[in-house]
Amino acid sequence: MATKISPISGFPEYLPAQQRAFDAITAKIRHAYESFGYTPLETAAVERTEVLVSKGIDAKEVYGLRRLAAIMGANDDDTTGAKELALRFDLTVPTARYVAQNYGQLVFPFRRHQIQPVWRGERPQKGRYRQFHQCDIDYIADGAGNLPLAADAEILACAFTALSSLGLNFTMRVNNRKLLNGLFAQAGIAEENRTAAIKIIDDIEKQPTAVTLEKLQALTPKATELLNVLSQKSPVVVDNDTREGWEELQSVLANTQAFLGHDIQYIKADYTIARGLDYYTGTVVETTLHDAPELGSICSGGRYENLAESLSDRALPGVGISIGLGRLGMWMVEQAPWQDYAATPAQLYVAFGLGTVASKLRAAGLNVEEGLEDKPLGKQMMTAEKRGLTHAVVGMEGDTLTLRTFATRSDEHLTISALAKRLLGA
Amino acid sequence: MATKISPISGFPEYLPAQQRAFDAITAKIRHAYESFGYTPLETAAVERTEVLVSKGIDAKEVYGLRRLAAIMGANDDDTTGAKELALRFDLTVPTARYVAQNYGQLVFPFRRHQIQPVWRGERPQKGRYRQFHQCDIDYIADGAGNLPLAADAEILACAFTALSSLGLNFTMRVNNRKLLNGLFAQAGIAEENRTAAIKIIDDIEKQPTAVTLEKLQALTPKATELLNVLSQKSPVVVDNDTREGWEELQSVLANTQAFLGHDIQYIKADYTIARGLDYYTGTVVETTLHDAPELGSICSGGRYENLAESLSDRALPGVGISIGLGRLGMWMVEQAPWQDYAATPAQLYVAFGLGTVASKLRAAGLNVEEGLEDKPLGKQMMTAEKRGLTHAVVGMEGDTLTLRTFATRSDEHLTISALAKRLLGA
Repeated sequence: MATKISPISGFPEYLPAQQRAFDAITAKIRHAYESFGYTPLETAAVERTEVLVSKGIDAKEVYGLRRLAAIMGANDDDTTGAKELALRFDLTVPTARYVAQNYGQLVFPFRRHQIQPVWRGERPQKGRYRQFHQCDIDYIADGAGNLPLAADAEILACAFTALSSLGLNFTMRVNNRKLLNGLFAQAGIAEENRTAAIKIIDDIEKQPTAVTLEKLQALTPKATELLNVLSQKSPVVVDNDTREGWEELQSVLANTQAFLGHDIQYIKADYTIARGLDYYTGTVVETTLHDAPELGSICSGGRYENLAESLSDRALPGVGISIGLGRLGMWMVEQAPWQDYAATPAQLYVAFGLGTVASKLRAAGLNVEEGLEDKPLGKQMMTAEKRGLTHAVVGMEGDTLTLRTFATRSDEHLTISALAKRLLGA
Repeated sequence: MATKISPISGFPEYLPAQQRAFDAITAKIRHAYESFGYTPLETAAVERTEVLVSKGIDAKEVYGLRRLAAIMGANDDDTTGAKELALRFDLTVPTARYVAQNYGQLVFPFRRHQIQPVWRGERPQKGRYRQFHQCDIDYIADGAGNLPLAADAEILACAFTALSSLGLNFTMRVNNRKLLNGLFAQAGIAEENRTAAIKIIDDIEKQPTAVTLEKLQALTPKATELLNVLSQKSPVVVDNDTREGWEELQSVLANTQAFLGHDIQYIKADYTIARGLDYYTGTVVETTLHDAPELGSICSGGRYENLAESLSDRALPGVGISIGLGRLGMWMVEQAPWQDYAATPAQLYVAFGLGTVASKLRAAGLNVEEGLEDKPLGKQMMTAEKRGLTHAVVGMEGDTLTLRTFATRSDEHLTISALAKRLLGA
């Protein structure tokens, strides 16, 4: 068939079997998040453009809305307010806005998870998606601003649990912005240059060491010593500059282990983790897959002290983390066990013309695909098998069904309840 | 707290307890859809504007995309292709486009469900949403165009099962476009006026009878007789004009009953159901809630013969139905049993300072909210109860936990496994 419409670059869609695998992946993440008491939240696809811009998001990477009639040149009075709206860029800003708007109706501390797509006006580039799902959790402090350090550890433990439940092999690398700032202070980097220093450290894995060193040398004569400490070739000197950050980091690592109740060799300190975003003030974390480091950080986040700035009179300190399912999602659905999903949720095919068998099997708890066309049985089986089904009911006599197993091409006779028990493993 | 950002009109968001109820509602719909073998599908939020426009959707009601930088007046070279994109208006057109694009990789007949938001540039108006979820199923014929009439009945039975599982009281009203056309022919309405007649009938419940009659009288001198047949005051005369549509309708009603395996007094023929959309060619259906008829049709659909026109060389005949969860969703979360959801997925609160109890309870299968702040126990209980929790672990001695039940303010002592068994009902 000649398709007349080409795919839209950067907006990937899954085939049915992949979609079922993807849904199973998000269900596992959700299950892990909810086991820690994080409650589901969905926000509208749009935010006011003023909100996004006030958060420092690059307008070139944001999709604004216009009523289509206006774009097509019609004299459009736009009663829909489209001009003031844009698609959300992440899930953190919408949550800050949601919490500010609904503050009086929420109970704090507020733990929420959010699993929804975000949109980014990226230039077309391999592995860059313009729409992808993020799976976020955030712990927002109460009105008095109480945000225990244990919250940082809970967030790490919760994300660790989610990623582990997916069977992934990964390392979470944890750092602390206060420690980084202390190390910058020790190296004599002036306060006004610390944001620049953060950006240099954040880029450290994308640049040759010589380039990083040269950039740091523009800020401090102790660049080599600083790099040695960051890469753990020299020990951290714990002094007044570094003590608070150092102690917070040790506490977060120890508490995370306590939350998980088992060894955390795959959660470790890494002083080169910086995170580019301005709003982080303490713990920062990135996560790398052992089997696919080229995907970059698949799970990142940190602690922030004032996310609601410009949105409300309160500061809304919190700590959060996000699993990004763009490239990671596409990669996972090609790996075991996710690659083996069938292109149907049905557990059983029921051949054409068997009366009310299908509805009885559904009443017994099975997902059933019923043949609605009077085609030769062999042809029906072929279609069912192609779709990933493994069994079919091909006949009935009284209360006894004839069950065909595709793998062995063999038939057997059993009752509806016996069949349901078999396929549901109950 | 002074919120500085006002809500966006037409983009409602749920509070946490409502969101959990809404998620439970969509999960039940999904479960019913999958029990009939409909496989999950998600499409991108955007479509090419040319696709939407070619389907006759009003450009005034579509949100087009522009890169925000361009809207804000920057000289924008827009490498993101935003100008050609618009937010999807429904889930039917995206599915037609998806099936046309992925035709070679799908197995037909193709049954899919899709539960995603759609966006409509409605003018601000009570009960009109600019974003709301639709829950669709469609049965798409194979390449030879085989689309058995039983598919219409399966779609009705599946949607009926979904709505019943939600505890709703409703009536599905079914008609057939061929029958309507036959009745128009009997009344002497010329072929070129039949589309106009469809629109008049589609509006029949929004207009006084006198207005409908007057409009029909402009098309035929037999307007009164036609209205009497449509409102079932006079019987349908089954002749060459009406036979095909009449027989299809009887067959669909009988087959739906067979699929459901029980009485279908709440699925009935109604000759005034027309559906406004041009692409319907046979069965059409609308559904009204007994308890809230003011919500309009909560579940509508029908059969179409050529949905992929302009998208591919094939016709893609199919039949589909859609549950709209905009006003219905907002209404349901205020009704029993949905109004009683807690604002947390946690089944249990664990007080501050009890070591690894929380992680052990999670390992036993419970969702646990742990207190991370050293606050007085009474204050912790108050917060937990406010969030909708009913039980808390407030102490531990050896392997024995102290469980407090909020309703009775009573404590008891039991092991972790006994507690898990109790709360999970296992």
